[in-house]
Amino acid sequence: MAAAAGELLAELREWIAIPSVSADPAHHADVVRSAHWLAGTLRRHGWPIVEVWDRAGGEPILPAVYACWPAADPAAPVVLVYGHHDVQPVDPVGAWRHPPFTPVLVGDELYGRGASDDKGQVLMHLYGLRAHLEASGAFAPAVTVKLLVEGEEESGSPHIERLLTEHGAGLDCDALVVSDTQLFDHDAPSVCTGMRGLVAVDVEFHGAEADLHSGRFGGAVPNPVTALARLVAALHDRDGRVAVPGFYDDVREPTPVERAAFASLPFDERTWLERTARAQATAGEDGWTTLERIWVRPTAEVNGFHGGYTGPGVKTIVPNRAAVKLSFRLVPDQRPDRIRELVRRFVAEHTPPGIQAEVRFHPGDLPPALADPDHPLTGAVLEAVESAFGRPVLLSRTGGSGPPGLLRSVLGVPLAFLGVGLPDDRIHAPDERVRLPVLHRGAEAAALLWRMLPERLAAARGRGGA
Amino acid sequence: MAAAAGELLAELREWIAIPSVSADPAHHADVVRSAHWLAGTLRRHGWPIVEVWDRAGGEPILPAVYACWPAADPAAPVVLVYGHHDVQPVDPVGAWRHPPFTPVLVGDELYGRGASDDKGQVLMHLYGLRAHLEASGAFAPAVTVKLLVEGEEESGSPHIERLLTEHGAGLDCDALVVSDTQLFDHDAPSVCTGMRGLVAVDVEFHGAEADLHSGRFGGAVPNPVTALARLVAALHDRDGRVAVPGFYDDVREPTPVERAAFASLPFDERTWLERTARAQATAGEDGWTTLERIWVRPTAEVNGFHGGYTGPGVKTIVPNRAAVKLSFRLVPDQRPDRIRELVRRFVAEHTPPGIQAEVRFHPGDLPPALADPDHPLTGAVLEAVESAFGRPVLLSRTGGSGPPGLLRSVLGVPLAFLGVGLPDDRIHAPDERVRLPVLHRGAEAAALLWRMLPERLAAARGRGGA
Repeated sequence: MAAAAGELLAELREWIAIPSVSADPAHHADVVRSAHWLAGTLRRHGWPIVEVWDRAGGEPILPAVYACWPAADPAAPVVLVYGHHDVQPVDPVGAWRHPPFTPVLVGDELYGRGASDDKGQVLMHLYGLRAHLEASGAFAPAVTVKLLVEGEEESGSPHIERLLTEHGAGLDCDALVVSDTQLFDHDAPSVCTGMRGLVAVDVEFHGAEADLHSGRFGGAVPNPVTALARLVAALHDRDGRVAVPGFYDDVREPTPVERAAFASLPFDERTWLERTARAQATAGEDGWTTLERIWVRPTAEVNGFHGGYTGPGVKTIVPNRAAVKLSFRLVPDQRPDRIRELVRRFVAEHTPPGIQAEVRFHPGDLPPALADPDHPLTGAVLEAVESAFGRPVLLSRTGGSGPPGLLRSVLGVPLAFLGVGLPDDRIHAPDERVRLPVLHRGAEAAALLWRMLPERLAAARGRGGA
Repeated sequence: MAAAAGELLAELREWIAIPSVSADPAHHADVVRSAHWLAGTLRRHGWPIVEVWDRAGGEPILPAVYACWPAADPAAPVVLVYGHHDVQPVDPVGAWRHPPFTPVLVGDELYGRGASDDKGQVLMHLYGLRAHLEASGAFAPAVTVKLLVEGEEESGSPHIERLLTEHGAGLDCDALVVSDTQLFDHDAPSVCTGMRGLVAVDVEFHGAEADLHSGRFGGAVPNPVTALARLVAALHDRDGRVAVPGFYDDVREPTPVERAAFASLPFDERTWLERTARAQATAGEDGWTTLERIWVRPTAEVNGFHGGYTGPGVKTIVPNRAAVKLSFRLVPDQRPDRIRELVRRFVAEHTPPGIQAEVRFHPGDLPPALADPDHPLTGAVLEAVESAFGRPVLLSRTGGSGPPGLLRSVLGVPLAFLGVGLPDDRIHAPDERVRLPVLHRGAEAAALLWRMLPERLAAARGRGGA
């Protein structure tokens, strides 16, 4: 890995220098540049099939990169690796000690936007495949490896579903490996087994035609801000459970084994509160630990609320309008469509007379994703990570959301997470960084995984057919 | 009144043309100009003592105008008339059909900012005194009339209390007459007997040091927006009563006579809802009519609420901060100090662990004001208005707030309202106007009042001493 390590570093530096911020139209040309940089790099690495996909439904999109390295054996399993090459915006840019798009190496840490999320983890797979080929001495991998590297993930993956259906045949596979998650800690390697889903909605309450004078009308007409605050207050019960009727109907509870595994993680709540959350207290659903609240329990969160006058001084009005942004994190087996329906009903039930409600769901629902703990794919990933990191591997999940659940449901194949980000990589924040040795171990894990998978998946197929 | 009517119109036109908007620093020179215009006009009318008060506590203020016309009899009662010469801002100026500061006469209606609120009603008193002198053929009025015309009323009267205490001797009086209220309707003249008070407060909830990612933290830390929405939801009970403990302790219920008087007013709720409030439904405290809810019941109103992200699209955060602007309309005998204390306690009780609350009351509390229905001053005003308008006079109140309650409590004298604004004068709104014949009748009522008062107040003094 010594020579490869130098190459990986050089390539990651080049790639980070391309500011592929998908949320900022001023950087859309950079996202295109980033896609072509990756395509060129894949070709240089020897990948036989490399394509830049820059349209979906006939419309231009921020391009995704597709690549495939077929196994010598046409009957070998096919694995699709998912990642993304677009990055988060860098605001507030003044808070960066290192410049976001001029990578700086400090010891074995490389600083820059996208170093960890997700350019580093994508490159890890290029070097993983190379290591696999070197170890086997073959010209083709033991499994067919397909790579789908999206350019719109940080903008909610608005075209991913369309891409999946349009390129159906090209994306056919037996298993999905997602590389956009984190280890529990650098000295506590873990395999993520689930990701929460997301449904986001704006609710607006309208009262009178205009703001009213609170002296001349206050107390005699409904106040939309008060009404909407009541709806927000009604979202949770006294035990911190989401009080939208039916919300928990499809929730799959974690197994006792999984809960025990989470409980065994080296998690210090006080440290987490003070250093990570920088919050004053924990709070949430009764009966669950902090990690469980984030990983295996669904939530209803207010992301923003606005109504009436919010400037300095006093303005004595009954506002005529209030708006709230809500988002729901979902866990297996909650379904976004069903949640939308329940939320719609909840809003209707909490709209008082004299108020008109407007409910607008944002596009891009993300279903939750779960790695089947009993599937041999999961077992293989666990073994590969354990072997690469030389430590017992723990189980974790992620509270965030992304397209894996969507990919899984469209492709209909088992899914595993092979992510090697670290919790202090500062993804989405100033001074994002990656620890290079962790990327090297991740590449090693991927190499081991490709070697193990033919046998493991064959066993699964055998079982499936039995 | 015919010749005087022409003069009044000419003077009101001149005065309206001075844009004395106290809320806008760009117009502060105009407020000064307006004060000096009034002082000059008072002198021209023959008032022997006229002063411009432009300092309070040694600091410059937007000037108030003081004038006094002593009675011939030094033992005659002294009446202080309160009004203001500053005006509301004119935004949105594009919504005016007539220009706000170039008065336009349409039939017997004069359009312009301040025409009704309160320049027209102040001039009414100059002409009322003149009519009184003409009717009595004397060179001095039957009562000593003092005039205090403030320049900061539309900005919350921040210096009125200071002015009252600094000029204590000059403002000594036996009765207070406030001319800044409205008749119930142009064909239903009424005398206002009460005005609500006001306490305004900003409450801010702080959570984590910064906004948190709702995937990585959502469900495990308190959300200040949710917490503040719960506080707002807890402000009222299911019956629409304010649920701040102790809030109603000092509320003086209206008498059955007063409730019957209100019920007899020609009030059509449907028309009020559609044309005046332009709202979809009434709402409020159970057991009270719409007019009672506005006039004799205290309220808690949200004037504004803000927290988190409120722009387009989705931002999946747990906001770290939320702020609400609340105002409480008070009725006799609620006391602002006591309400502040109760609100402070209420906020403390509704601040959950992990949230820090900041409570900032706005300066300028306004106590409620009540005209004693049994006092001869009230009876005299009723008779004067009835006689001037030639119709039975009804009882009303106002839901708005102003300095009268403060004046009353500092001066310690009975108070009456002699206001002749009309509900469709569009005060505080585009196309404010005044109906000139109503001002003339108001002047007539004032003239009658000055004639009646010596005898009536002497009777009151006699009773007081008995």
